[in-house]
Amino acid sequence: MKLSPEVTDSLTLKFAQLAREKNQAGERIISLGLGEPRFLTPESIVEATIEALKEGYTRYSHPKGLFELRQLIAKKLSSENAIETIPENIIVTPGAKQASMIALMAILEPHDEVINFTPCFVSYVPQVKIAEPNSKIYNIDVNRDDFSIDWDRVREKVNSKTKVIILNSPNNPTGKMLTHEDMLQLVSIIHKYKCLVLSDEIYEKLVFSNFKHISPGSYKEIQDRVITVNGFSKSFSMTGWRIGYVNANAEIIKNMDKLQQHLNTNTATFIQKGVCEAFKIGDEFWDQHNSDLNKKALYIEKTLSEKLNVKIVSPEGGLFAFLNIRASGFNSDTFATKLLEAKSVAVTPGIAFGADWDDHVRVSMAVDYDEFKEGIDLIREFSKEIQV
Amino acid sequence: MKLSPEVTDSLTLKFAQLAREKNQAGERIISLGLGEPRFLTPESIVEATIEALKEGYTRYSHPKGLFELRQLIAKKLSSENAIETIPENIIVTPGAKQASMIALMAILEPHDEVINFTPCFVSYVPQVKIAEPNSKIYNIDVNRDDFSIDWDRVREKVNSKTKVIILNSPNNPTGKMLTHEDMLQLVSIIHKYKCLVLSDEIYEKLVFSNFKHISPGSYKEIQDRVITVNGFSKSFSMTGWRIGYVNANAEIIKNMDKLQQHLNTNTATFIQKGVCEAFKIGDEFWDQHNSDLNKKALYIEKTLSEKLNVKIVSPEGGLFAFLNIRASGFNSDTFATKLLEAKSVAVTPGIAFGADWDDHVRVSMAVDYDEFKEGIDLIREFSKEIQV
Repeated sequence: MKLSPEVTDSLTLKFAQLAREKNQAGERIISLGLGEPRFLTPESIVEATIEALKEGYTRYSHPKGLFELRQLIAKKLSSENAIETIPENIIVTPGAKQASMIALMAILEPHDEVINFTPCFVSYVPQVKIAEPNSKIYNIDVNRDDFSIDWDRVREKVNSKTKVIILNSPNNPTGKMLTHEDMLQLVSIIHKYKCLVLSDEIYEKLVFSNFKHISPGSYKEIQDRVITVNGFSKSFSMTGWRIGYVNANAEIIKNMDKLQQHLNTNTATFIQKGVCEAFKIGDEFWDQHNSDLNKKALYIEKTLSEKLNVKIVSPEGGLFAFLNIRASGFNSDTFATKLLEAKSVAVTPGIAFGADWDDHVRVSMAVDYDEFKEGIDLIREFSKEIQV
Repeated sequence: MKLSPEVTDSLTLKFAQLAREKNQAGERIISLGLGEPRFLTPESIVEATIEALKEGYTRYSHPKGLFELRQLIAKKLSSENAIETIPENIIVTPGAKQASMIALMAILEPHDEVINFTPCFVSYVPQVKIAEPNSKIYNIDVNRDDFSIDWDRVREKVNSKTKVIILNSPNNPTGKMLTHEDMLQLVSIIHKYKCLVLSDEIYEKLVFSNFKHISPGSYKEIQDRVITVNGFSKSFSMTGWRIGYVNANAEIIKNMDKLQQHLNTNTATFIQKGVCEAFKIGDEFWDQHNSDLNKKALYIEKTLSEKLNVKIVSPEGGLFAFLNIRASGFNSDTFATKLLEAKSVAVTPGIAFGADWDDHVRVSMAVDYDEFKEGIDLIREFSKEIQV
């Protein structure tokens, strides 16, 4: 395809790479850049993958994925997400990123419209434009005071040409989570306009507030119109494994299956086998991790109070906090660059997540608590120093 | 995108799946369907991957791939293929299939023309149409008597709108290999029309004739216009691992890198690390395997002589033989279906590889010699029985 101008380098990867290179060159950088959990992949998954490798799970699998794994995913979606499905409507992909990519390729046609909420994961807009260069994206900014969705703004934009609404809760980069009230608004819109929902739920296990993760696919009225994307990267610290999955109705899955056959053949077979172990891991696994995330969120709140030049809305879930740096007078790239130069702390410029968010930076809470604390302290120092 | 009608299910996967299901149901099927080597992945690669897993190579890598691996690939391309390149111009992808997919996405624009030779690998045409639904493909049939390319036919079709010529040697499904004379024809055409070459060299190590594999990228005059795709699936029996790579000029790699970032992030990191071991394996590794393939090719030649209803052109490399079944009076799907019913032998209908090849079937030589022999004997029996 003609690559649209929206198909740029992934700015989050670029900045993380910069920090990595500086670290490799011997300069100590505190990277609050990438959303990569720091704990190790659970031993049981590693061991099962090693067993699978030894047992010769090194050949092609069914393009959609091992039936055993798809059965486990279907069961999980039913019991944890209240999404009733069957293994036939699930495809295992090399990463959740590719799950949403193939889903968009399967559903978007020329002149279709897409509703997306900004700030958002850096790949949604490029993926829409890769899937269909002649699509139109409405990027609707969330409310600036609490990162909630203004559904009246959605109603202004949605119309008969709207093919899909992209949702991501817990949200990257804001940490915001969708509520039951949001879902009721969504259901009424979908009911009226018959469009689809692409729900990226990759951070579902990382919830450290009183909120509960809700899947749009659990609402019976719209279940058939929801494409649910998830994976193992963030929940099980398997970012480098590249395995995710998608659940959708039979018609969409049929087209996605064709794309899968010509893009991937299948996801690495022994990885599929190994990840079956993940379903034996109980929710207590995340308790410690989420309690750590909660401590970090509280530390940001306490440290970067409004007296400084950095304002925060407390994140509810996910791996990130999104800081308003408007008072600093810098745009996000300048802020991030100066912060890196002055304090050796890497954050991600808000502009990476949406055109209107150049007065924010994203901070990852994925690093160890002590390092995180040090990083936040340095951001406070930096903010004080640049105060007019 | 609007899925073009060319984006169908992969017929080879479909037929192999059918054979697999029948086998699982207890019916013994000799599958001469899929191109999946039967030997095991070399122990050293498995061991190194296990080590990498244990050592925590479970995080994101550079989107293009581990530098260590790209260095090894660059060295291999230089020493084995006479392609001079640098690690920066290489991207490691989840399978060679996705390497050609992303390459086509990066280069094709609306109304570009593509020259493809049929019969061909089932995914080329769908991939072209996925990459750019508004492209035009000229499928040029190879000569029916020896599967060679008629370069005069290429000269009839190539023009200023031609963006890329797709080549695959050793060839799937014909087993044909390109010669130095072919390359000279190619060079003169590229020189005149400035188009690109996509060279799929996935079967390069599987050569059991007196031919020598030649890479188009080794011709200095066109080196910068050749996109070389390769992987580990066929050479090292790593079909289920999904790892391949692509080498191209900096401009193409820049766009492919963007696509990689939004489709994959990267290829599974511990697989990248493990596959570094593959470069220590010497050519003697394939000697036994190629001698087996040679025995199989000779057995086809001896057994399915022209006296029967099946005619063959001896394959020179790769994993397949492509049999002319015109004399049987059946089209390829009927022949394959009847063969499966009567003799429990699965082959792949020629129509899967090109519209004009409905009088051929593809036979895979990937199975063990004894099973292969039994399968070929059964094809002979079948051919005798259906003789008028």
